[in-house]
Amino acid sequence: MNSLPLGSSIGILGGGQLGRMLSVAAARLGYKTHIFEPSAHPPAAEVAHAVTTAGYDDIAALQAFAASVDVITYEFENIPTAALDALEALRPIRPNRRALAISQDRILEKDFLTSLGLTCAPYAAVQSLPDLEAAIATIGTPAILKTTRLGYDGKGQARIKTAEDAAEAHASMKGAASVLEGFISFSHEVSVIAARGLDGSVACYDPGENVHKDGILHTTTLPAKLSPSLRSDAILLAARILNALDYVGVMGVELFVTPQGLIVNEIAPRVHNSGHWTQNGCAVDQFEQHIRAVAGLPLGDGARHSDVVMENLIGDDIARLPQILRENDCAVHLYGKAEARAGRKMGHVNRVIRKG
Amino acid sequence: MNSLPLGSSIGILGGGQLGRMLSVAAARLGYKTHIFEPSAHPPAAEVAHAVTTAGYDDIAALQAFAASVDVITYEFENIPTAALDALEALRPIRPNRRALAISQDRILEKDFLTSLGLTCAPYAAVQSLPDLEAAIATIGTPAILKTTRLGYDGKGQARIKTAEDAAEAHASMKGAASVLEGFISFSHEVSVIAARGLDGSVACYDPGENVHKDGILHTTTLPAKLSPSLRSDAILLAARILNALDYVGVMGVELFVTPQGLIVNEIAPRVHNSGHWTQNGCAVDQFEQHIRAVAGLPLGDGARHSDVVMENLIGDDIARLPQILRENDCAVHLYGKAEARAGRKMGHVNRVIRKG
Repeated sequence: MNSLPLGSSIGILGGGQLGRMLSVAAARLGYKTHIFEPSAHPPAAEVAHAVTTAGYDDIAALQAFAASVDVITYEFENIPTAALDALEALRPIRPNRRALAISQDRILEKDFLTSLGLTCAPYAAVQSLPDLEAAIATIGTPAILKTTRLGYDGKGQARIKTAEDAAEAHASMKGAASVLEGFISFSHEVSVIAARGLDGSVACYDPGENVHKDGILHTTTLPAKLSPSLRSDAILLAARILNALDYVGVMGVELFVTPQGLIVNEIAPRVHNSGHWTQNGCAVDQFEQHIRAVAGLPLGDGARHSDVVMENLIGDDIARLPQILRENDCAVHLYGKAEARAGRKMGHVNRVIRKG
Repeated sequence: MNSLPLGSSIGILGGGQLGRMLSVAAARLGYKTHIFEPSAHPPAAEVAHAVTTAGYDDIAALQAFAASVDVITYEFENIPTAALDALEALRPIRPNRRALAISQDRILEKDFLTSLGLTCAPYAAVQSLPDLEAAIATIGTPAILKTTRLGYDGKGQARIKTAEDAAEAHASMKGAASVLEGFISFSHEVSVIAARGLDGSVACYDPGENVHKDGILHTTTLPAKLSPSLRSDAILLAARILNALDYVGVMGVELFVTPQGLIVNEIAPRVHNSGHWTQNGCAVDQFEQHIRAVAGLPLGDGARHSDVVMENLIGDDIARLPQILRENDCAVHLYGKAEARAGRKMGHVNRVIRKG
């Protein structure tokens, strides 16, 4: 396997908290990181070797960035195609373009997952109000209308309680292509943080159980409430997705647990908020796992030494920091963001459950 | 308690691996770090917000550094007095000057420890060859002659097997003030990583058991072989040292285990190589504990969720990296040093012992 020599540089598209924690993991493995980020003073800049501040339409900046690194990865999936074209001409992008294309488009994603024999919520592509009305007639209500592209943390979504909500929901998409998803009845959500190496080996962490608040992940708890057979299903299903994509890196796979088995909610071709618990539950966390994969190193096996409850600190939650710092067995991870806006992820805590 | 606001900057004297790991811990708590280091491209620079490359005799650079930060700490104890004077005129230095002065001088250190009722190996100050001969007559052989100042990892030391070695040993000190230490018969060495907060609270990690190779720490194993009463003695003794110094920060206290009880080998007023295991054994590691202390935050309680064996990667040990990366439950921490010289600390691994 062709692994990056010590001292090599890994380019990361995006300078948020995920890029920040990827940079720290890369440093721990003896690599440098170079962050590409349009906004000034991104969280990752504090702990990275180099930072380029430029937009994704600045092809010269992208080319200089690519030329300065040995491999390119990313912390978010909504990267413009032209930018990817410019980068890929110079350096490998891991995970690959196909994984990105699929996760950038909810219809492509659901078509892909369904083609693997996996179950998704019922869905239909919507371009026009008549499309939407027809989709509601087939899928029923309640349902949720989402833009096909660029969705993140509940943005670009409209709930449809009855058929009469159709016009308003359609208008809220502002002409963007969208997808109607049927509601499904599930008891809880789990996610699998899965990794695939350059050599094709796959390693998964034990699924965590997610609780959302106001459309944003609130807590992830390990272990999840899952029967042994569903736990095994979850991991095999994630591995099937990674193998089908010839994927290299870490992926987050969100699953609904239903009486009929697991339903795939969505996949994210990157380290994932629901995998932050691994920082204090495993010898090799998801950030290091991702760096190992894109650098061509052997993967960690994903074993968990401790149970963990991860809690996101959103907006004003950061005001609880003085109390949190007094808790025992509580690992604090802040992102260095100056201003606590509503809905902004300021940090997270991992509460470690010590065994006897 | 007057704690540093989020986004404050912590100045660190020294840019080696300890400064590097302190910088990562500071970032995790939402602080920036500024490294002061004479040599170019120090390991800490990769993960720090700012770096000043200047010598400790460059008073203007020291003053600019101090003015740019909110508090100053250090990763090594041999900082020139004039530099400390310049810095302390502008910003608090934590741990304080007294702790530094004592640990910079083996005689002061032993006098201090003895004054607290703690036991050290027999010792005598040596300026001249007649001093040394008299000391050998009192203390006996074998013994070890060490420079009073600037000792580190076996440098500046000469073993004295018989009285006839006196002249050669004295000559090897090159005129530096030195101290003769008697050998003591001990079964093993342990160290306590202890911390004291700005509010005077003390928290200690469980003692680790150290094995040295060629005068350099090789492994630290948790838990150490220690009876409950010696474990308690070790922690109380460390707390006594910290309280006597009105200390703020993490200190490493090396102890010899003998049939007569614990003998203090030496103290280091900083995070310590024998505390690296805490990165994968505790929710709050020694680096974060030190940053919490110097920033005036509450200390973590030092509880251990997992047993750990830490192994240093010295010089060519780094060539074993491909095998090490394939081990399960093994956390790798590299320092980003380009060249593997003999005796150079390149990184360490923490092997986590999973329970049940």
